Amino acid sequence: MIKIGVDAMGGDFAPKITVLGAMDAIKKYSDIEITLFGDEKRIKEYLIDSTRINIVHTDRVVDMGEHNPIGEIRTHKDSSLAMAMQAARDGVVDAIVSAGPTQVVVVAAHLIVKRIPEMKKVAIAPIIPSFDGRGKILLDSGANVELKAEHINDLAFYATVVAKEVLGVSNPKVGLVNIGTEEGKGREVDQEAYEILKNNKKINFGGNVEPKEAFFTDCDILVTDGFTGNIMMKSIEGTAKAFKDMLKQEIKASKKASIGYALFMKKAMKKFAKRFDASEIGGAMICGVNVPIVKAHGSSDPFAFMNAIRQARQLVEGRVVEKVISTYRSEKSE
Amino acid sequence: MIKIGVDAMGGDFAPKITVLGAMDAIKKYSDIEITLFGDEKRIKEYLIDSTRINIVHTDRVVDMGEHNPIGEIRTHKDSSLAMAMQAARDGVVDAIVSAGPTQVVVVAAHLIVKRIPEMKKVAIAPIIPSFDGRGKILLDSGANVELKAEHINDLAFYATVVAKEVLGVSNPKVGLVNIGTEEGKGREVDQEAYEILKNNKKINFGGNVEPKEAFFTDCDILVTDGFTGNIMMKSIEGTAKAFKDMLKQEIKASKKASIGYALFMKKAMKKFAKRFDASEIGGAMICGVNVPIVKAHGSSDPFAFMNAIRQARQLVEGRVVEKVISTYRSEKSE
Repeated sequence: MIKIGVDAMGGDFAPKITVLGAMDAIKKYSDIEITLFGDEKRIKEYLIDSTRINIVHTDRVVDMGEHNPIGEIRTHKDSSLAMAMQAARDGVVDAIVSAGPTQVVVVAAHLIVKRIPEMKKVAIAPIIPSFDGRGKILLDSGANVELKAEHINDLAFYATVVAKEVLGVSNPKVGLVNIGTEEGKGREVDQEAYEILKNNKKINFGGNVEPKEAFFTDCDILVTDGFTGNIMMKSIEGTAKAFKDMLKQEIKASKKASIGYALFMKKAMKKFAKRFDASEIGGAMICGVNVPIVKAHGSSDPFAFMNAIRQARQLVEGRVVEKVISTYRSEKSE
Repeated sequence: MIKIGVDAMGGDFAPKITVLGAMDAIKKYSDIEITLFGDEKRIKEYLIDSTRINIVHTDRVVDMGEHNPIGEIRTHKDSSLAMAMQAARDGVVDAIVSAGPTQVVVVAAHLIVKRIPEMKKVAIAPIIPSFDGRGKILLDSGANVELKAEHINDLAFYATVVAKEVLGVSNPKVGLVNIGTEEGKGREVDQEAYEILKNNKKINFGGNVEPKEAFFTDCDILVTDGFTGNIMMKSIEGTAKAFKDMLKQEIKASKKASIGYALFMKKAMKKFAKRFDASEIGGAMICGVNVPIVKAHGSSDPFAFMNAIRQARQLVEGRVVEKVISTYRSEKSE
């Protein structure tokens, strides 16, 4: 049995969607067991089937607008998030899923679950949609404002293991996010990272990738520092939203278009929206700590949250953390 | 008369679209005169009306894939781009429009037209679409891989003058591109830039803007370094392309949707595409040099190229360069 700890109170619509998502995941995967951390009474409002689901009660919830992540985690050991993390550290659960505030999840991962000693940095790795529907891992998307080239190199290897186990790609290709495709482009850190990645035999390096190719490149992994990754992710998010909103407005503005949409296009548009929706693929992984942690989007619906649980299950089943650690240790002893 | 120099041979479809765009601009604006620099014979194939248009012949064209911009500009003074720039430097024309390769245009601006002494950096400033249709100025979008906070501050002021004259905004608001909205977010350079921008009385500072708000914010100008701006611009570009391609695919994949589209939605979709199309608003401005220069997109159609000419006209008419210079000089003498 794979034991997954769920921060039932994290996210904009908790505990409703976390509980519904957990029940969906239980139905779908017979090899998982879920522990929900949070307000027992509120959880039970939605938990109509507790098969392979147990509850660890706590009153405290991390505020979604929390501005002092370190203070929060250091002071309150009894929040649903901190308790789930502690259970992971104690080996009571094998992985964590939370839709709580990103920076607090990262800090809790750091302070409670702890970093893999061989990895110098912890990174946030969302899966971004790709044109072929397989998804791509983007990291770091915001845990570290600055990263050295060697850190980017560590992340590239970590993500390679993840891509094999979670995306099911046999020889995942790594692209370095950059402002041009030729070698020598970008800032000093990008030029250095290019050099190190090129010589890293543990990964399959595909060179520089410009963000305009993010959806079309054959790279499965896109690496960069957390500032750049965050700018990229939020640019994609904003453009997709603007696109959707403008499209809706134009359809609504014309009676003819509204009729055409309702009669003929609704299904095609839904399929289209689904392809562009990252929640289809999963949440963001917190890479570099001792236990797999998946950060679901704050506004996840039950389906997206279920997918984040599925992803946590795959990270455990694929023994991602163990594989990273053992590779580093065997290299060291060589 | 406003005299505009056009690099007739720059761009993927030159000289056809540059000549057609020039003729359109002449029809639309009675106060401009255009000089086309390039192959006279090829230009004349398309120039059916030479009212207020003259030609300066040259055989040489800058290759669209040129990888050595500095070498190109230093060695070949007789390319259509270099000759247009030289004419601007000599005061024969008041502004330049080119759809040639961006980095070569920037280098030519630097080496031939020269930097305004008070501006320490030259930046590329495209106009990106916004939800309300007014457009926003993003800079630097790629001329400088790294910028100091004081350079970002210079660009914010320059763009403020441009936004007044070109976008017609009376008190343009400046946003600093960042990974969070609160003060103190981002890298050291972003934190420093925030501080300087906040205290700059020549601009109206609106704080940090996350790229996901780029289309929705009430800021008219978004400032950052050239690496970040380029990542952002190319992320927007790639997402818009992926979105369009996926939408097309889904409509084509269903017969019902194809019929619905053809009968009812074509017009709404065209209006939508128009709103998202930056060519409606203009090209990228090269900010910080002694003459207004507009870099049209390499794949511009005549309409987009005409719009770039319109924009150059506005920059001259609004006396943008003079206003920037006189503000700096009057500050100095205070």
